[in-house]
Amino acid sequence: MEKELVFGHQNPDTDAIGTAIAYSYLQNKRGFNTEAVALGKANDETAFALAKFGFKEPRVIKTAANEVDKVMLVDHNEPQQSVADIDQVEVTHVVDHHRIMNFNTTMPLFYLAEPVGCTSTIMWKLYQQYGVEIPQNIAGIMLSAIISDTLLLKSPTTTADDHEAVKALAKIAGVDYEQYGLEELKAGTNIAGKSEHELINLDAKSFDLAGKKVRVAQINVVDLPEAMERKEAFLQAMRTVSEAEHYDLFMLLITNVLDSDSTALVIGSGEAQQAFEQAFGPVKDAEISLPGVVSRKKQVVPQLTGAFK
Amino acid sequence: MEKELVFGHQNPDTDAIGTAIAYSYLQNKRGFNTEAVALGKANDETAFALAKFGFKEPRVIKTAANEVDKVMLVDHNEPQQSVADIDQVEVTHVVDHHRIMNFNTTMPLFYLAEPVGCTSTIMWKLYQQYGVEIPQNIAGIMLSAIISDTLLLKSPTTTADDHEAVKALAKIAGVDYEQYGLEELKAGTNIAGKSEHELINLDAKSFDLAGKKVRVAQINVVDLPEAMERKEAFLQAMRTVSEAEHYDLFMLLITNVLDSDSTALVIGSGEAQQAFEQAFGPVKDAEISLPGVVSRKKQVVPQLTGAFK
Repeated sequence: MEKELVFGHQNPDTDAIGTAIAYSYLQNKRGFNTEAVALGKANDETAFALAKFGFKEPRVIKTAANEVDKVMLVDHNEPQQSVADIDQVEVTHVVDHHRIMNFNTTMPLFYLAEPVGCTSTIMWKLYQQYGVEIPQNIAGIMLSAIISDTLLLKSPTTTADDHEAVKALAKIAGVDYEQYGLEELKAGTNIAGKSEHELINLDAKSFDLAGKKVRVAQINVVDLPEAMERKEAFLQAMRTVSEAEHYDLFMLLITNVLDSDSTALVIGSGEAQQAFEQAFGPVKDAEISLPGVVSRKKQVVPQLTGAFK
Repeated sequence: MEKELVFGHQNPDTDAIGTAIAYSYLQNKRGFNTEAVALGKANDETAFALAKFGFKEPRVIKTAANEVDKVMLVDHNEPQQSVADIDQVEVTHVVDHHRIMNFNTTMPLFYLAEPVGCTSTIMWKLYQQYGVEIPQNIAGIMLSAIISDTLLLKSPTTTADDHEAVKALAKIAGVDYEQYGLEELKAGTNIAGKSEHELINLDAKSFDLAGKKVRVAQINVVDLPEAMERKEAFLQAMRTVSEAEHYDLFMLLITNVLDSDSTALVIGSGEAQQAFEQAFGPVKDAEISLPGVVSRKKQVVPQLTGAFK
């Protein structure tokens, strides 16, 4: 059977990489011929999870059409979050938990999206539906993905399905999910060893909002004041990237994974800044406190989309 | 719970109406509060199937936002095939078997598409997945939808899943699907009592192909020469509608449901006509024979999409 690549979004997180591995395994069991790849290097948290469950980091690709005609997407659908040449290949399968935006196909396809906290929660259900047994290491990486996306079931994106999946997968993986979950999240919060430029690209997504180019980056920390000591350097890096990439708005969400609060740094053109303030209130010195905000998908993007209309 | 409307596409066929009824029943069993409606009057075939299984024709709506905030779509996703004010409501669920095009949401949603012959085949699987028993009349209307979309399992869109669903649903509905299927298809081929204008609108869909407005209508017959006696009147009706609606191309596919061949009538601007001929070969006197072509979705739209690129 013709080979297909399976991958998550650019700036991959544990869901993007972990669910790609899980989907590739599932589809191969069902008779497809797939390879899980990634659109970037694993971040610290993902590297920790991959190592814990004995996986090597997937091969990194930037384009797909040079290797295959067909691909399967997990954890994203928006073209600007995918391989650079996504319009040159046929997308045959998508499993995702985001809104659908600018995703167009010529042919009918398999597309499963559910408004749950993590793509791996949907994947866990697909394994059951297709009657494929989940190996221990696959259960471990799916568990890691759900812990990551839901901040250990604390994000407002978390659903009953995510809770159920975490319990079931932790059992198969043979770990205490609360203990392992804290270890995993902490592994992703070491910002001391990274430049501001690296940090603002670690988990960043671009959105086209009513014609405006909006970038929303997020970093997880355990010590917010320590991160804010680097505020000016963050802003400088955000300005440099915004100029180069012509972003109308750049928002950096700095999230404390222990208490589920965030502070955001924001820069943008007058009009875009105005839309941002309409959604979230006044920004002072390029900074705004966002208590309780931890989810870009549920607590940031819809609000911005509404304000930019 | 807040009420939601469930509906299929404009110019509804048996899949659009039948699957809306089946999905509304399923979702209500799962705790939602929905009503199945239709975006147009049932055609002869659908009316026959509804009567056979004891359903009243669903209420017809043109807009949704005047009644509800949220809707569920079946058998379509492209906005121009939906209610006129689709951008004013939130789409919470989609079950479909078409390509995805210009379908954008602000929020994550449930979206299930599979490349099978009929949306009711996916619906049949959803009933099993959710563990909801299928009543006899719902089985009958889902069976009718699959017979309609696959031309009694003869269309090239037909998959193994469609075969399986037809057998299972016929058993629950208590009918011989081959005998009932022919009766149902024939009920939709009576063109004698309808004007050309009615016929070209009966099962017609609009597509935006690289900026061109393309209309593809289809009628089912059992006697192709009898239909072609009305060729000039069909062309006149197509020209009138094209001018009013600014279509760049209007194609009427006249399909013999007994031998699975079609003849198409085609009118369009120079550029659009050229793209059409690139896809299907030369059109003579606005007419082209398309042996073996019965599926707009699989044998017409992808080919046109490729040619219009």
